[in-house]
Amino acid sequence: MNISEIKDPSFLKDLTVKEMNDLAKDIRDFLLESVSKTGGHLSSNLGVVELTIAMHYCFNSPKDKFLFDVGHQSYIHKILTGRAKDFPTLRQFNGMAGFQRRNESEHDCFEAGHSSTSLSTALGMAVARDLNNEDYHILPVVGDGALSSGMSLEALNQIGDLKSKVIIVFNDNNMSISKNVGALTKAFGALRSSKGYLELKHDVKDFLMNAKHGSETIESIKEVKKNIRNKMIDAYIFDDFDIDYLGPVDGHNIHDLIHAFETAKTKDGPVVVHVVTKKGKGYKYTENDSSGKWHGVGKFDVKTGEMLAKTPDNYKSYSKIVSDHLLNIMDSNGDVVAITPAMISGSALNDVFAKYPKRSFDCGIAEDHALTFASGLALNGKKPFVSVYSSFLQRAYDQINHDICRMNLPVVLGIDRASIVGEDGDSHQGVFDIGFMRPLPNMVITEGKDSNEIENLLELGFKMNCPFAIRYPRGSIVYDKHVPMDIKPGTWAKELINEDVKANIITYGNDVIRIGKVINDNMLPYNLYNARFIKPIDEEMLLEIASNKKPIFIYTNDMIKGGIGDDILELLNKNNISVPVYIFGVDDIFVKHGDTALIKESLGLDLKTLFSFIEKTINA
Amino acid sequence: MNISEIKDPSFLKDLTVKEMNDLAKDIRDFLLESVSKTGGHLSSNLGVVELTIAMHYCFNSPKDKFLFDVGHQSYIHKILTGRAKDFPTLRQFNGMAGFQRRNESEHDCFEAGHSSTSLSTALGMAVARDLNNEDYHILPVVGDGALSSGMSLEALNQIGDLKSKVIIVFNDNNMSISKNVGALTKAFGALRSSKGYLELKHDVKDFLMNAKHGSETIESIKEVKKNIRNKMIDAYIFDDFDIDYLGPVDGHNIHDLIHAFETAKTKDGPVVVHVVTKKGKGYKYTENDSSGKWHGVGKFDVKTGEMLAKTPDNYKSYSKIVSDHLLNIMDSNGDVVAITPAMISGSALNDVFAKYPKRSFDCGIAEDHALTFASGLALNGKKPFVSVYSSFLQRAYDQINHDICRMNLPVVLGIDRASIVGEDGDSHQGVFDIGFMRPLPNMVITEGKDSNEIENLLELGFKMNCPFAIRYPRGSIVYDKHVPMDIKPGTWAKELINEDVKANIITYGNDVIRIGKVINDNMLPYNLYNARFIKPIDEEMLLEIASNKKPIFIYTNDMIKGGIGDDILELLNKNNISVPVYIFGVDDIFVKHGDTALIKESLGLDLKTLFSFIEKTINA
Repeated sequence: MNISEIKDPSFLKDLTVKEMNDLAKDIRDFLLESVSKTGGHLSSNLGVVELTIAMHYCFNSPKDKFLFDVGHQSYIHKILTGRAKDFPTLRQFNGMAGFQRRNESEHDCFEAGHSSTSLSTALGMAVARDLNNEDYHILPVVGDGALSSGMSLEALNQIGDLKSKVIIVFNDNNMSISKNVGALTKAFGALRSSKGYLELKHDVKDFLMNAKHGSETIESIKEVKKNIRNKMIDAYIFDDFDIDYLGPVDGHNIHDLIHAFETAKTKDGPVVVHVVTKKGKGYKYTENDSSGKWHGVGKFDVKTGEMLAKTPDNYKSYSKIVSDHLLNIMDSNGDVVAITPAMISGSALNDVFAKYPKRSFDCGIAEDHALTFASGLALNGKKPFVSVYSSFLQRAYDQINHDICRMNLPVVLGIDRASIVGEDGDSHQGVFDIGFMRPLPNMVITEGKDSNEIENLLELGFKMNCPFAIRYPRGSIVYDKHVPMDIKPGTWAKELINEDVKANIITYGNDVIRIGKVINDNMLPYNLYNARFIKPIDEEMLLEIASNKKPIFIYTNDMIKGGIGDDILELLNKNNISVPVYIFGVDDIFVKHGDTALIKESLGLDLKTLFSFIEKTINA
Repeated sequence: MNISEIKDPSFLKDLTVKEMNDLAKDIRDFLLESVSKTGGHLSSNLGVVELTIAMHYCFNSPKDKFLFDVGHQSYIHKILTGRAKDFPTLRQFNGMAGFQRRNESEHDCFEAGHSSTSLSTALGMAVARDLNNEDYHILPVVGDGALSSGMSLEALNQIGDLKSKVIIVFNDNNMSISKNVGALTKAFGALRSSKGYLELKHDVKDFLMNAKHGSETIESIKEVKKNIRNKMIDAYIFDDFDIDYLGPVDGHNIHDLIHAFETAKTKDGPVVVHVVTKKGKGYKYTENDSSGKWHGVGKFDVKTGEMLAKTPDNYKSYSKIVSDHLLNIMDSNGDVVAITPAMISGSALNDVFAKYPKRSFDCGIAEDHALTFASGLALNGKKPFVSVYSSFLQRAYDQINHDICRMNLPVVLGIDRASIVGEDGDSHQGVFDIGFMRPLPNMVITEGKDSNEIENLLELGFKMNCPFAIRYPRGSIVYDKHVPMDIKPGTWAKELINEDVKANIITYGNDVIRIGKVINDNMLPYNLYNARFIKPIDEEMLLEIASNKKPIFIYTNDMIKGGIGDDILELLNKNNISVPVYIFGVDDIFVKHGDTALIKESLGLDLKTLFSFIEKTINA
């Protein structure tokens, strides 16, 4: 059928299972065609085509509420709720979001982007529904990686206690973005390989009593249970949380899915429907991907599976610059260990894990645990490097504060995807980390302007005996040969000094290079300072800068509130220095999705706006 | 024996079990006597007397590492490691800490204060030990409340996966500070009531094959397991995490404890030793306390159990002012619901839970889940009030950001124990919340100067349709009759205006009253402004304040970095206003434990220092 003509999911009710299978095929074709042109999340969506069709067949959205955990697997839901026509604008500025978005559709009842929030939200919604005496279903769709995260387990703990009706769709593909880790993975594996079980088990005891060997079995079990524990029986995690279980169901068999959902509807309390899916189903390249390469993709050739965007030869991603140099450091320092919360591929740590498997740790989707785990390693003399995306580091704020900074432990934080990130949108922008880390005593925060400064700062991080963060954005830059630098802790660098200076510009990261180029290209009479230490700031140099009495322009792509500008104002104020200061940054709003250049332009953070503002100001 | 003469735990090795039981009695007497004079954590320590003795008997601290989760149950450990003599200074300024503290003793290998960090830390330490080819035991001691928290479960997930040897001492008293909640509580209950099992179960299958009915049982189990799940068998949560289990052991039977620990030593991988203890054991008032009243106490009469500190009749605790008024609001607005993460008693919510059990939710020690649960309630039209201590709210930073502020949801946060808290020390100081919340778009942060302003701000919180925080410190103030106020969102109040003004003071919370009293008593020529909105600040009033060109003194008991001072500097700078500004607050250090007055004095934050600084400045 013509996918783009779907207005809402009501048409599904009249389809046969065979017609729904045909629809699934058409949707996969549409998805491949569409995502190959825009980029986006592919594998996770290919895995839930039949599942999403069956959900919309059995339930009535928007009355019934679908909550896609993380949310990047909601493309089929978007298609079935009339948004296929918007796919050409997927993840683009002012276009359709890559996650559920309330203002896009009445079928999007919540918004996420970070993992493992759907169960807590679903329980809150269910409790509210019951207090309101309303009657509808609430269906969080949560993967096995996300379900192993602490917050999901906390939610299960209260769901099993309150017994509010929530139909938990456990989308089990045995993958996070890459391979899953952790003991629960084994428990899920045992469930997955058990034979399908599609009836509710209210009356297990009755069933057993009537079954062949039933009553003897009960007696036997009673007799040995004081000795055996349940090692002989598969471990069933959901029983511990006192939540009923249906499954495992083949997530690509629409008939079975419908049967499971219809059974789940009849249950009074919470129930888990265990759906086994294959991530990337229906496209050979995604089906065979275990590394996560096809999780989120750029444009590609559907036929050959070739990615169309190429990084120039002399370019290297920031993540890779850091991880390659980390590997060098690990070669020479046996105390350095590497930690990631489920982001081996995203953080380019594959080589590190391959070369040093015993010194590399994937903690799963558990940023909080990962940081305190690092604290324990540091307490016993190790030098942990933890690689985390800025926005996911938000999950570990207290652990950085309470378990690392408070004890002043030498943990090096590699903060990937810092500042404005782009297409993933407001949940993924890395604009808050400076704000939440700057007030932490003992914390050092840095950012390098180019590959060599990044490498040298990373080295310094392992030498300084304190919590040390190095930030770096998404993307790639020119990779330069490594040259040892002697960076004194807490010092900035003078990048460009003009004898006839009219303005001082302070910035950090690769913007130092970008801004320097504009100044040089246009021979502008501006001094440029590289604030490679965001905390502590370089007091001596700041006072020197202020001494020329020219206005100071602070340029950042992070939140203004809580940012380096605040520290600069504090220090100037403390020294009773009055000089005009202008702070560029994100001004107390959440940054939406889209191309970073367009986002910056919309926020007045593009360099054209910066330089014309400076010119206007100094000529005023 | 004379408890104060204990130098280190080595003497224990020569004691008989009977002598250790006598020691336990002496320690309890010492503890009661001592804590009754200083205040401190009582019940949790009375519960672990035999357990701590047995640990020090079986293991060799400091070579073996003891990690007390949260840490307030480490008093016996402190006694046995030679610190009994320091108990008269317990929790006092420059005295002994109420938690493990590395600089106090080589027997304190880590520091905590927040719950559920010990397992992650222990795993990190164990991995480091193994990488270092060292050989010693690591024993996190974790309660059932703390173990149900997501971070502990994440740690179990990786412990069961990595199989590093950690002896997890599961101190199960079926209590958090007050009664435990959640489905796992039931799973633990099933374990607790099972018959003691003190041997390892490596060879269950062999055992069964040889046992009477053994081989038939295996066949029977195989046959029915596709149908029965493990409902017939007690649910054993630790099996799901693939961690071996020993117990339950009577935590007050030293003989059994020794047997269990000696067995645990022989195990290669991780093992849980399930110790069932009675919180408050050995003192009738604590044994019968289910509300948490005796969890942390002030001075009391050991004989009568009477608390010696009395709140004057016209005083009321901040927590109670808020919860009583919340109850009023709940009476008239059926959409308001109350949420606490395991702090019913500490947050004075007992009456709320009693009157509205269906609209009150204890989420257990799970601040992150609690905030996202609130988000779900708000998404479905409810008006959640979440009461959390400031320092514990740190655990939910991302949930406030990603799940509440990003969707601009009407969740009212009651931030208890804000600013400098006192005796619990650096892990409990509520000095960071402004810093991490101020950069969040949509967030409103308030603090009232007296009971009536607090009540009126709370009412306003439920009227404003956005994330709204109201902060209040520990302690009590005069309770005044409720008088409706018409507080316009974002407005400050002029408290004292002097015609011959020499200085402007801006502050918030009860310091408005305290500072106002000094100004009035001494007829000082200072204007005083009540910054009851910490975010957004009152731009109009700030410009008016600055217009008198007198210096501005900002007085806070929170971190300077990220605090209201930064916002004021930003706004003055933006408006190109140059006026001297002096910011009082915590200057980039962690605040230690002790009496708040002494802490403030040591930080230069006492009012005497403030006023002499102002006088000196305006006369300079």
